[in-house]
Amino acid sequence: MCELLGMSANVPTDICFSFAGLMRRGGEIGPHKDGWGVAFYEGKGLRCFHDASPCHSSAIARLIEQYPIKSENVICHIRQANVGGVSLANTHPFTRELWSHYWAFAHNGQLAGFHPAAGPYSAVGDTDSERIFCHLLNTLASRYSAPPRLDELTQTLSECCAPLLPLGVCNLMLSNGEWLFTLCTSKLHWITRRAPFGPAQLSDLELEVDFKQHTTANDIVTVIATEPLTSNEQWEAYQPGEWMLWQKGEIVLRGLLLTVQ
Amino acid sequence: MCELLGMSANVPTDICFSFAGLMRRGGEIGPHKDGWGVAFYEGKGLRCFHDASPCHSSAIARLIEQYPIKSENVICHIRQANVGGVSLANTHPFTRELWSHYWAFAHNGQLAGFHPAAGPYSAVGDTDSERIFCHLLNTLASRYSAPPRLDELTQTLSECCAPLLPLGVCNLMLSNGEWLFTLCTSKLHWITRRAPFGPAQLSDLELEVDFKQHTTANDIVTVIATEPLTSNEQWEAYQPGEWMLWQKGEIVLRGLLLTVQ
Repeated sequence: MCELLGMSANVPTDICFSFAGLMRRGGEIGPHKDGWGVAFYEGKGLRCFHDASPCHSSAIARLIEQYPIKSENVICHIRQANVGGVSLANTHPFTRELWSHYWAFAHNGQLAGFHPAAGPYSAVGDTDSERIFCHLLNTLASRYSAPPRLDELTQTLSECCAPLLPLGVCNLMLSNGEWLFTLCTSKLHWITRRAPFGPAQLSDLELEVDFKQHTTANDIVTVIATEPLTSNEQWEAYQPGEWMLWQKGEIVLRGLLLTVQ
Repeated sequence: MCELLGMSANVPTDICFSFAGLMRRGGEIGPHKDGWGVAFYEGKGLRCFHDASPCHSSAIARLIEQYPIKSENVICHIRQANVGGVSLANTHPFTRELWSHYWAFAHNGQLAGFHPAAGPYSAVGDTDSERIFCHLLNTLASRYSAPPRLDELTQTLSECCAPLLPLGVCNLMLSNGEWLFTLCTSKLHWITRRAPFGPAQLSDLELEVDFKQHTTANDIVTVIATEPLTSNEQWEAYQPGEWMLWQKGEIVLRGLLLTVQ
């Protein structure tokens, strides 16, 4: 199983601390040795880093850990391959352009027998994850010629995702740089940090950060991860089937998928 | 004016040496301080690095210079902004997916009054360069539902590009990972290195490499750049209006655009 990490913040914020924790699970203490990737939005621009080699030994991952790239929306993924070989083309996050925005997507889980209809967006690699992403974009592009309201958008995403639930595990993160859509079907946790900020201690690494020294009183920063990344904070768990749309560190829409049995 | 750098090789080859030469022009000895980017294909996978800060002082650029990423098709660009502000979204190379391949594109020049018809591919940033890229993809996607033969592909690209010539300067590089299409309307040079390999000396930096030590007798590596990057080798110049399609380090198709006056 792969691991996901996402961030939604109301000010450009770096993800070095959380990334350092996740990296250790990328082939060192965890089994996720089959590549990793991260997508940072900067305005409408998108900066992606991918590597098909293990995260913990990647020169590029070391750069990300040390070089504070500031973003309001981040999606990160470390991979343990099940469907699709180990290759750059199969490494999340996947990206496409729709309605003059770059969209980024990462997924953990696998779906049995998922073969969506063809459309203008088609997978480059051979993961079911990338097929899900293309299916979501094909559906959105066929229904709307311009960005719909957020409630319509999440309604459409929910309708697309509900039939996937009986097929397997489908925890996912999707962003267009303005919001971060997250869906949990088995495991996903989140924490929102805001004033008064305090210290946080990583679970997997002797590393502590005092967020007070890196923030202002108005900052709101939410981190979403497969497993809680810190040992001294209270993370909240998504329910299976629950989705949340994050914007500027806050939940703006949330709901529960109706499963189709 | 921006500078372009491309590579086509028959074996995965790193571009560290040429990149080191180009980097010095990115805001240090040259005026191209408004960002830079590079796209490396690895199989069908595409690895991109972008930065809106000057290349010569970028931590990411230093990584690329020192970390040998091997690829058969590379497109690199350093930017001096004219149309479109300095931002990540305006930084080349631009990428899109078409027919289950990632396509990468970079451009140098500017076109006056270029407003192509809308289509499924639309620009995220506000450069005329990205609009040209979307125009090429929209034309290809509307004419073919699957990859055409290379002669048909280049014929279509030529027909798309010919009307651009009277609008301004349009040197460009386009790849789908299997080939590298290049068009020169004002300035572009190339060199093909093959056995017997010898030493090469950068023009802009005290750096020499002996390619004999890094190659086998069968390697064929072509580097294409706005200006020759080395001082002790004979580079060849494209003619204005000339295009070449490179594959595995060799020209497989070439032609001259008929200008529409």
